[in-house]
Amino acid sequence: MDIIPMHLGVAHFKTPQIAIDAMQEALVSQETYYGPNEGIAELRLAVAQRYFEDDGIPVPAEQVLITHGTKHALHLFLQSFLQPGDEVIAPAPFWFAFPEMVSQAGGKLISLPPNPEEDYALPLSAIKEHLSPTTRLLLLTNPGNPTGRAYSLKELEAVAQLMEQHASLHVLSDEIYDGLALHGTIKSFLHFEHLRHRVTVVNGFSKSFAMSGWRIGYIIAPFPVLQKVNELQQKIISGVSPFTQVGAAAALRHRHQIWEGFKNELLQKREKVAAVLQQLPQLSYVLPDAGYYFTIDIKGCLEEHSPASPFKLVEEWAAALKEQVGLEVLPGTAMGMPTAVRMSYALPDYVLASALDRLSAFVKH
Amino acid sequence: MDIIPMHLGVAHFKTPQIAIDAMQEALVSQETYYGPNEGIAELRLAVAQRYFEDDGIPVPAEQVLITHGTKHALHLFLQSFLQPGDEVIAPAPFWFAFPEMVSQAGGKLISLPPNPEEDYALPLSAIKEHLSPTTRLLLLTNPGNPTGRAYSLKELEAVAQLMEQHASLHVLSDEIYDGLALHGTIKSFLHFEHLRHRVTVVNGFSKSFAMSGWRIGYIIAPFPVLQKVNELQQKIISGVSPFTQVGAAAALRHRHQIWEGFKNELLQKREKVAAVLQQLPQLSYVLPDAGYYFTIDIKGCLEEHSPASPFKLVEEWAAALKEQVGLEVLPGTAMGMPTAVRMSYALPDYVLASALDRLSAFVKH
Repeated sequence: MDIIPMHLGVAHFKTPQIAIDAMQEALVSQETYYGPNEGIAELRLAVAQRYFEDDGIPVPAEQVLITHGTKHALHLFLQSFLQPGDEVIAPAPFWFAFPEMVSQAGGKLISLPPNPEEDYALPLSAIKEHLSPTTRLLLLTNPGNPTGRAYSLKELEAVAQLMEQHASLHVLSDEIYDGLALHGTIKSFLHFEHLRHRVTVVNGFSKSFAMSGWRIGYIIAPFPVLQKVNELQQKIISGVSPFTQVGAAAALRHRHQIWEGFKNELLQKREKVAAVLQQLPQLSYVLPDAGYYFTIDIKGCLEEHSPASPFKLVEEWAAALKEQVGLEVLPGTAMGMPTAVRMSYALPDYVLASALDRLSAFVKH
Repeated sequence: MDIIPMHLGVAHFKTPQIAIDAMQEALVSQETYYGPNEGIAELRLAVAQRYFEDDGIPVPAEQVLITHGTKHALHLFLQSFLQPGDEVIAPAPFWFAFPEMVSQAGGKLISLPPNPEEDYALPLSAIKEHLSPTTRLLLLTNPGNPTGRAYSLKELEAVAQLMEQHASLHVLSDEIYDGLALHGTIKSFLHFEHLRHRVTVVNGFSKSFAMSGWRIGYIIAPFPVLQKVNELQQKIISGVSPFTQVGAAAALRHRHQIWEGFKNELLQKREKVAAVLQQLPQLSYVLPDAGYYFTIDIKGCLEEHSPASPFKLVEEWAAALKEQVGLEVLPGTAMGMPTAVRMSYALPDYVLASALDRLSAFVKH
C-alpha cells in the first residue's frame, strides 16, 4: 500500500521562483566564494527591514546573523548561551528536537504540560510556578509547532511583565512558521524593545518560504550573545553560501505576495480537514492559527478511555493507522504531548482528500 | 595604500562553469527541498568513484557523508570520535583551526615541531616518540597546509606499519588540497584497505574546485564512526542543499579537466615566486608539491639571528610588511611554526608580480 506522508515538516508548496531567479543572477556575478561569516549585508538588511516595515520594530541589520538553517541557529544559540545545569522552561507541545538540543548544551528542560482545553494558551501560571533562580531561559514557539497557536499581544505582554520581575530570565522565541499566519499577523517577541537585551529570536526560510533545501536561517540576539554565536559559527562551520543568501533576500522582499498565495491555499485545506474532524468525535483538535499542522488529541481512541480499544499508546495507534490505511502521522510523545499526533495538511488537494478518507475509515472502523 | 592579500585561503580561480550549469538544472527540476541527511546519492557515488577510478581504491558510496564544508566535517568527526583527555598527535605546521577544534572536542593536541630542514618529511621518529596508550588519533594533512608537502607512498606505508603495532591508533587525513597536485598525484590514506576501519578522510570542494562559497565537504570514515557523525549532523544541522550537491557532483566528474587547468596556472606562478625567493637569502622555503601556498621561514629576518633587526616575532615582521609595503601574509605561530609565514600565490599575474616586487623591496631594505 502507498503511504500518504502527513508526518513531515515540509509543505507541497513550490519554492518561490523569485528566489531561484535571484540566486541565478548571483551565480552570473560569481558570488560563489567565501562570504562574511555573519551573512551577506543584503540579506541581513532584508531581515531587519521586514520587522520594521511590517510591525514597526527597529532591528539593526548588525543584530542579524545568517545561519545554516534554523536548527543550527538553535544549536549555536543554546551552545553559546547555556551553562551546565541551567534550567530551560518550555510549554509543551514543542518541536521534538528541543529536549536533546537543550541537554546537549548542558541545560535541563522543564516541560510544562500541554493545555488543549485552553486552546493551548500561553500557560502563564505554570511558567510562574516553575520559575526559579536557576531558570535561565523560557523557550517559546510562536506560532506553535505543532499547535499552530499564535500568541496574542496580551499573552506576550504577560511574559514581558514576568521578565521585568525576573531579571535573569531570557526568552528564546522560535518564530519559524510566522509567515504562514492564516489570519492577522504573528507578533514577534522582538516587539518589546526595552527587553531586547534579553530576547533571542530564531527564524528561517524552510517553512514560510518553502525553501527547506536551501538551509538558511537567522538569529537575532543581544549583541554579547550574537558575538558568541558568530564566533562559534566561524570556528566550527563558517558562513552560509553567498549565492543562496541572495535568493533568500529576494524571497523576503517579496514576502507579502508569497505569503498571500500560501495562506489562501492553506485556509481552504484547513477547512477541509476541520470538516472531516468534526465528524469524528473520538478526536479532538484546536483549529490552527498558522502553519500547516493539525494537532489532534487521540486519547478518545486509547484503551484508557475506550476499554475496547487495542491501543495503549499513541505510537500504537499511529502504527496501526499507517499499516491499516496507509496514513503516516507523527506521534506527539517526543513533543511533550503523549496522547496526540501532528498531522501536516500541506498536501495537494487530491492527496489530502484521500488522506482524510483514510483517517475517517480508520477511526470509524 | 592598497593591501595585496596573500594571507587568504582562497584562490583567484573561477568556480567551474560546469558546476554552476549542473546546479541550475537541479533548480529547474525543483531539487530545493530537504534532501537526505547523508547527502544525495549522486554526489556520494561521484566521491566514491573518484577514488576507484584514479587510484583503484574501492570506497562504497554508503561510506561517504556529505557535510557543510570540510571545516564542519572535521568538527563533526572530532566531536563524535574523541573522548575527554584523548591525545591527538599532529606534525606541525597544520591548519590554524586544529588546536581549538581538538580542544573543543575534549582532546589534547600534541604538536610535533616542523622540520623544514628535512623538506617537511613525515616525522616518523617524532610520532613514535610521542605515541602512548592515551594517543587516540594521528592527524595528517596531505598535502600539507601550508607546506604543500605531498607525502610519498613510502612515508604513508611507515605510518600504516605503525598502526599495525598500535591497535588503538586512528588516522585522520585531511586531504582538502589533493586536487591541486603540481606533479604526480596525491596518495590518499584510504589506500590502506586493511586499515580502513581505523582511517577517516575529510575533503571538500572549497580549495581543489574553487567552490569555497558552496560550503560542501565530505567525510569517509569507518561505518561505526560515520554513523555517529551522521546522527550528530542530523541532530544539530541537517544535510546539505541538494541543488548545490548536484553542482559539486558535476565538478567532481570533470575533475581531470578542471585540475589540469588549475595546475598549469599554478606551476607558472610557483616558478615566478621561487625565482624571486632565490634572490632573498634571508628567507628560506621549500618548493610546494601541491596547493597554492609557500611556507617561508623568516627567522633570518628576526633579531635572534640578525641583531640589527627590529623584529623579535614573526607577527611584528608580518605587520611591518603589511604597513610598509602593503603585503599581507599569515604568520605561522597558530600553525605550529613560530618563525614562518604562509603566503598564497594564487593571484592574478599582475597582482602577483606587484606582490613579489613589494616582498623584495621590504626584505632588501
